[in-house]
Amino acid sequence: MGVAEPAVQLAHGGGGSLMRQLIEQELRPLLPPEPGPLHDAALLQLPPGRLAFSTDGYVVQPLEFPGGDIGRMAAIGTANDLAMAGARPCQLSVSLILEEGLPLALLRRLVASLAAAAAECGCRIATGDTKVVERGKADGVFISTSGIGVVEDPQLQRHPIGPAAIRPGDALLVSGDLGRHGVAILAARHGLQLQPPVLSDCAPLWPMVQALLQAGVRPHCLRDLTRGGLAAALQELAEGSALELVLEEQALPVQEPVRRTCELLGLEPLHLANEGRFLLVVPADQQQAALAVLAPAGGAWVGTARLPAPPQRPRVLLRTPLGTERLLLPATGELLPRIC
Amino acid sequence: MGVAEPAVQLAHGGGGSLMRQLIEQELRPLLPPEPGPLHDAALLQLPPGRLAFSTDGYVVQPLEFPGGDIGRMAAIGTANDLAMAGARPCQLSVSLILEEGLPLALLRRLVASLAAAAAECGCRIATGDTKVVERGKADGVFISTSGIGVVEDPQLQRHPIGPAAIRPGDALLVSGDLGRHGVAILAARHGLQLQPPVLSDCAPLWPMVQALLQAGVRPHCLRDLTRGGLAAALQELAEGSALELVLEEQALPVQEPVRRTCELLGLEPLHLANEGRFLLVVPADQQQAALAVLAPAGGAWVGTARLPAPPQRPRVLLRTPLGTERLLLPATGELLPRIC
Repeated sequence: MGVAEPAVQLAHGGGGSLMRQLIEQELRPLLPPEPGPLHDAALLQLPPGRLAFSTDGYVVQPLEFPGGDIGRMAAIGTANDLAMAGARPCQLSVSLILEEGLPLALLRRLVASLAAAAAECGCRIATGDTKVVERGKADGVFISTSGIGVVEDPQLQRHPIGPAAIRPGDALLVSGDLGRHGVAILAARHGLQLQPPVLSDCAPLWPMVQALLQAGVRPHCLRDLTRGGLAAALQELAEGSALELVLEEQALPVQEPVRRTCELLGLEPLHLANEGRFLLVVPADQQQAALAVLAPAGGAWVGTARLPAPPQRPRVLLRTPLGTERLLLPATGELLPRIC
Repeated sequence: MGVAEPAVQLAHGGGGSLMRQLIEQELRPLLPPEPGPLHDAALLQLPPGRLAFSTDGYVVQPLEFPGGDIGRMAAIGTANDLAMAGARPCQLSVSLILEEGLPLALLRRLVASLAAAAAECGCRIATGDTKVVERGKADGVFISTSGIGVVEDPQLQRHPIGPAAIRPGDALLVSGDLGRHGVAILAARHGLQLQPPVLSDCAPLWPMVQALLQAGVRPHCLRDLTRGGLAAALQELAEGSALELVLEEQALPVQEPVRRTCELLGLEPLHLANEGRFLLVVPADQQQAALAVLAPAGGAWVGTARLPAPPQRPRVLLRTPLGTERLLLPATGELLPRIC
């Protein structure tokens, strides 16, 4: 038998000297330096504007996957939720729930990845917390992050982005190709050797939102396409706007390896999660300005909002190349658990 | 076999229609009404002042215990962290990680308790997230909350509360009797039938902090006495202030049933967690004003800060009734895992 790998112990979560050792010696050196000791509550300096606040829990399996890991997702996912409110991500909090026995080397990699991704998003890690549960009572590590962002744009401060702002005739655009995060996780979990490998699209969304705002685009709605994919997002927006949202099947950007894997496994790319893609809803006269920003990154116009013909309820339709329209339903949720 | 109890399913976390059903039909009716649909990021209205930001994960076992439950703790614990920065708690985010099979009736009780406790703390639940992991991959439910508070007091805005502000001669006070949360959890976990039963002290701290500020008390430091108890808190403050903190053993308020249980089990009440108690450090000339607020709730003066005699390092001492002083060390952490 070899020497046991250093790992998280239950006592690391007990509030005593071992916990301080874990935090001060293992975790804190991975974070950017902060003046003074870590406190239970951090005082903030924020740019002027209206504040946005968001939270997400991350339980993705496996913890590390092609194109990302749970640490990177935990920083980027929450920063992206803020960007979807038109807010510049500024501050993150991090709550770690660790399973006894988690190798310390893996924990260090995940926390370093989280710290690097937070910096990439322009976020300070303001405050954190660490708990430890017994072996078999968690699954390696769960991370919950919350974020504070600032809506700086005066028009967005007055007219918040949201489904209720969507109008008939608005154009629907996506910011890049769809389904890669879902396929990357699926392949990692089931040992599929895809050639070429499909990497998660996990990436910060604020830079592209900022570029849209700077180009004069004033979104009616923004929505990141995570759990449930484009189909779930559109279903929510159809109900929130009381409109019919019609997608053009041929316009949807799905890369060949993703499409092939979906066909093989009987999956619908529009149900797959993304971690670096969003839907943009703009007035039709802003479509070209928006595309000028999105298209170089693989974004595309994908459809239109319209009034439902009575007595139709709000719904999402997919128009095929033959011009027929079929209903696009969200998955119930069994599809791919623990995708984020 | 009876009819299966309604329970959380894996698909409830998948981002599809079942997840929306769980959130809209089961969880949302338990929360105060909010205008419009739930968004990924909430826009905030906050009173003027300097912002404080805090987070904590909650993994307490059992999920329900005498005097509280994990939902109540998750709201109150994070609000209390804000109060310890002198901030009025205003907004909470809630991240739920649920285990497949968790009875829905229990989930409803815990979320209702969380919502009631948030209201008791004066906090809006601004945003939330729900994830589900497979049976055996979590332990019922883990909750992470983050909170935003506002430091309204101009003096505290300029001179933040913290260990570095502690001065030699400062008085140490506690806000109430010690150790009840730890004993309540211990008894619940090990089936001890204490007579009379010991209830957790889980309670919001901001009202008492506000009363202190209104009485003209300007704390040098505030610290809630959670994991690791008074001993761990003082150890951190001794190091953060580079001072020696001397407790008077006879002055420590510990109720008889707590003291008896500790003696029986060989525990030190000063190592036990509290969820509604804090340490207050004030200049000696404010001690009476502070006691006028704290004493009616069972608070007491418990000791003094002083300069260490060189070459002594900062440390915590316990002065016995005989006048001798002994070192008070924090526990390593094995004592009582998953206390919060």
